Amino acid sequence: MTITRKDIEAAATVIQGSVVHTPTVLSPGLSRVAGMDLYLKLENLQHTGSFKVRGALNKLTSLHREETTGIIACSAGNHGQGVAYFADRLGFPATIVMPKDTPFTKIERTERYGAKVVLEGDSLADAQAFTNDLASTEKLTFIHPYDDPHVIAGQGTIGLEMLADLPELDTIVVPVGGGGLIAGIATAAKAIKPDIRIIGVETASYPSMRDALAGRPVTAGGATLAEGIAVKTPGAHTLPIIRNLVDQIIVLDELAIENAVELMADTGRLVVEGAGAVPLGAVLAEPDLFRDSVTGLVVSGGNIDMRVLASVLLRGLVRGGQLVRLRIQITDAPGNLAQVTQIIGKAGGNIVEIVHQRLFYDVPVKQTDIDVVIETRNASHTAEIQDKLEGAGWPTFALSDIAASPPSS
Amino acid sequence: MTITRKDIEAAATVIQGSVVHTPTVLSPGLSRVAGMDLYLKLENLQHTGSFKVRGALNKLTSLHREETTGIIACSAGNHGQGVAYFADRLGFPATIVMPKDTPFTKIERTERYGAKVVLEGDSLADAQAFTNDLASTEKLTFIHPYDDPHVIAGQGTIGLEMLADLPELDTIVVPVGGGGLIAGIATAAKAIKPDIRIIGVETASYPSMRDALAGRPVTAGGATLAEGIAVKTPGAHTLPIIRNLVDQIIVLDELAIENAVELMADTGRLVVEGAGAVPLGAVLAEPDLFRDSVTGLVVSGGNIDMRVLASVLLRGLVRGGQLVRLRIQITDAPGNLAQVTQIIGKAGGNIVEIVHQRLFYDVPVKQTDIDVVIETRNASHTAEIQDKLEGAGWPTFALSDIAASPPSS
Repeated sequence: MTITRKDIEAAATVIQGSVVHTPTVLSPGLSRVAGMDLYLKLENLQHTGSFKVRGALNKLTSLHREETTGIIACSAGNHGQGVAYFADRLGFPATIVMPKDTPFTKIERTERYGAKVVLEGDSLADAQAFTNDLASTEKLTFIHPYDDPHVIAGQGTIGLEMLADLPELDTIVVPVGGGGLIAGIATAAKAIKPDIRIIGVETASYPSMRDALAGRPVTAGGATLAEGIAVKTPGAHTLPIIRNLVDQIIVLDELAIENAVELMADTGRLVVEGAGAVPLGAVLAEPDLFRDSVTGLVVSGGNIDMRVLASVLLRGLVRGGQLVRLRIQITDAPGNLAQVTQIIGKAGGNIVEIVHQRLFYDVPVKQTDIDVVIETRNASHTAEIQDKLEGAGWPTFALSDIAASPPSS
Repeated sequence: MTITRKDIEAAATVIQGSVVHTPTVLSPGLSRVAGMDLYLKLENLQHTGSFKVRGALNKLTSLHREETTGIIACSAGNHGQGVAYFADRLGFPATIVMPKDTPFTKIERTERYGAKVVLEGDSLADAQAFTNDLASTEKLTFIHPYDDPHVIAGQGTIGLEMLADLPELDTIVVPVGGGGLIAGIATAAKAIKPDIRIIGVETASYPSMRDALAGRPVTAGGATLAEGIAVKTPGAHTLPIIRNLVDQIIVLDELAIENAVELMADTGRLVVEGAGAVPLGAVLAEPDLFRDSVTGLVVSGGNIDMRVLASVLLRGLVRGGQLVRLRIQITDAPGNLAQVTQIIGKAGGNIVEIVHQRLFYDVPVKQTDIDVVIETRNASHTAEIQDKLEGAGWPTFALSDIAASPPSS
């Protein structure tokens, strides 16, 4: 079954009024950072905080009401919430299956929309197997997260909206997991404007689509901040569409994704999840690809745990050299700590945290190490403060132990 | 000099194309939390992250180029950035004066837009006195942050845009500092739609406009998260306009402001500074005032320090009972710590941080206190974990020491 512009226009009629027509806006701040104009399609401001409601509503509306006793989906994330949200509004009982170790916030966000959440299986694959069983024993209609023509057509409405709002767009950058979003958008956009470029972005942990397009066995797995696109298997419907219509796939590592989430918040003033930030990451990774284009980034969702976001923001300050942990070796005598803090203060460093621990550091007994977390202007300001402490006779080391590893999620 | 709809329409023509026509969008998440439809005017997505560029550009454009040797403003915040941004684009040399203790990020953000930043004075009043002197000795044109008809007319363009984009709006909620923003919006909106309600919001630390309207001496001062509206003196131009056109002023305490910033991020998926979040805080504080209205909130800016935002987000989790610090008293024997962590893990608590300190707690020598920071579903889940620890024989106390005080900025 192929999906056409007509299917997507039909989907647009179905979802109109129930789904937010989100804005496509120039981001002045991100444009400055990237050195080129960047427009954002703000699906993080959508119902349930992600584009997934579009496909979910289009699919649910296509069901025969009398033949449908209930809905089932398998998703710990945005798809589960999207299905739950509109199943509730349309009066379908919904069951969302998630793996046992799903974080609380995801369970609560889905339950909030009226769905029954069932925790089953140690992995998404196990949860999926359980979902298939439950669907057949309880005669529930399974809603696939991406490999379904109605779902793809629903997501494609984003392409219609972007080109209606900004006809001069000539490049659209889209996160790729199973491929439903980009398949829909590519179908809509290329039908309207055949020479538009559609560029997909995957996380390096799950480059499934790139591998599948290259005819390579898919290698995928591992933790990623972009869990919304952590998909192991491209869709049977989506893969051929993507092969036909998508111009290029860019693959991003974790640091680039984390940096993009941080920039979206700090400079874009938007709360964006990892998957939603990868289009920005792609532009920053390959600027020459976009320099002369009118580029639209699909900010697909904003469902990021607030603890994870806080951690990304603080780690961003660390990477930027504006938050640094110094270890200062002083002799253990009264007044020395006061002198250290005075030197830091006079040099314009703002002390955020201080740990003075006499027992466990590997130093002589009359010497002690102080760990101080300070806020500075930048890395050279930090070096200046370090010099002043050394000048006072105290060996000082910058500890950057939290800069290299990804945030816990 | 009165300001009319015509002045604001003229300003709109001046700034068109140079300033972002920011979207006015329904926020599904915040509407759900508030129990009523809420529309947001997203000036946090504006150039320099705040509405201030509107007034600044309208004012700068009004200057006679041959009579203007340079521009000067006194502001550690959004006004300084707004003036710097367009002075640079229009080719005026700009000097922005800030008090000596201004945080780095504000200095850097202003310098980034090409202005010369001068740090002078221990307070904003001292900086202002210095600004006046410098303006007269160096023949620089002073740009007032709010009490200037061109500035007020520039900010008023927000009212035109909101009603053009959403004519059914019948209430607009606006942050109030010196009053330039609300005076402009009220003038525009009431000219177009005389029965529209305009409601202002102040921080309890600086209720200057409320006091001035009531004919009371203005009492203002202290630290606030909403530093963008921490203004001691209402404008001579703005006060009479507000007296005529603004229907009500709501005053919010710090906790309500902090909570609104947190909600804007977590539920609204927007990075918003304290001043920009007060309209949301006002709706949540006085829901009955807005229940039957079509309400638009002016999200005036998104310039919040990432460290402050991270702190607000984490404190929000603490207040919601989802991040809690437990102090557990165990006997100091091998294996006990392992048992504690096992109990917490089995009960579904996620350990984020652990401090095991034998020296300084006020307990017998064979007993030890462990402080554990855990992530839980909610307050009742925390209580459940506490019960299990107590059931194992270990007295457990919830420490909520970071929940009551405002964040350091």
